[in-house]
Amino acid sequence: MIDSKSLQFGPRDSKATIEEGLAFAPKFDEHGLITAMAVDADTNEPLMLAYMNADTLRETLTLGQAVYYSRSRKERWHKGATSGEFQDVIEIRTDCDQDALILRVKQRGGGCCHTKRASCFYRKVTTPAEAGTVMLEKVI
Amino acid sequence: MIDSKSLQFGPRDSKATIEEGLAFAPKFDEHGLITAMAVDADTNEPLMLAYMNADTLRETLTLGQAVYYSRSRKERWHKGATSGEFQDVIEIRTDCDQDALILRVKQRGGGCCHTKRASCFYRKVTTPAEAGTVMLEKVI
Repeated sequence: MIDSKSLQFGPRDSKATIEEGLAFAPKFDEHGLITAMAVDADTNEPLMLAYMNADTLRETLTLGQAVYYSRSRKERWHKGATSGEFQDVIEIRTDCDQDALILRVKQRGGGCCHTKRASCFYRKVTTPAEAGTVMLEKVI
Repeated sequence: MIDSKSLQFGPRDSKATIEEGLAFAPKFDEHGLITAMAVDADTNEPLMLAYMNADTLRETLTLGQAVYYSRSRKERWHKGATSGEFQDVIEIRTDCDQDALILRVKQRGGGCCHTKRASCFYRKVTTPAEAGTVMLEKVI
């Protein structure tokens, strides 16, 4: 495996470079993070939304498993390291302005979510019929 | 159509309420925004990632079309209002901690992306084989 620290990101020097260029030039926010959505590689079913910093993104690329940055714990988060629910990364895509990532993954273990469900997105928002509190409905 | 201002969100008063409750209690970040990923309602194909504030989220719920908040223009962004590329919202899901949304949409018009592609996620990150700049490959 190559050393993740040897990987570099491209410059974000023009709109054309960012949108049509072929150097990976991810944009990290003011906290040094980029949004990463994990979806099932076979079905595209959304699994979870999390964040990576430059180091964990590089590590994800060399390891082939999702390594996030936990905003609540403020630390590197190799998904599955404690639960066994690793995410093997099949493909990573980035968007036009390179400030978001899609990880197409094969989810190992019992499920993606810490609530033991297959996906974190287990509730849908109901269509409001009247004024008041908007309600959810469990779909998983 | 009911007045979007008449819609309320639930309290975020406990982990149990947020994770297992049925009141929609979205978490907005320090900028008042929540992440919203739009995916194709039929195929789950990721289309774009954007943000909503409380007002545009309420408006999305009553209008049935995606209304985002543009961070670059710092204003309400009714997707399609100028391009015709409206997103009819079929379903909205939220995740365990209710700080992210998935919009399952039917994309109208030519395509989701301002580059005229069907999806903003038209490039994949190649697997690095050696040290140096990580490269992309166009897949759409």
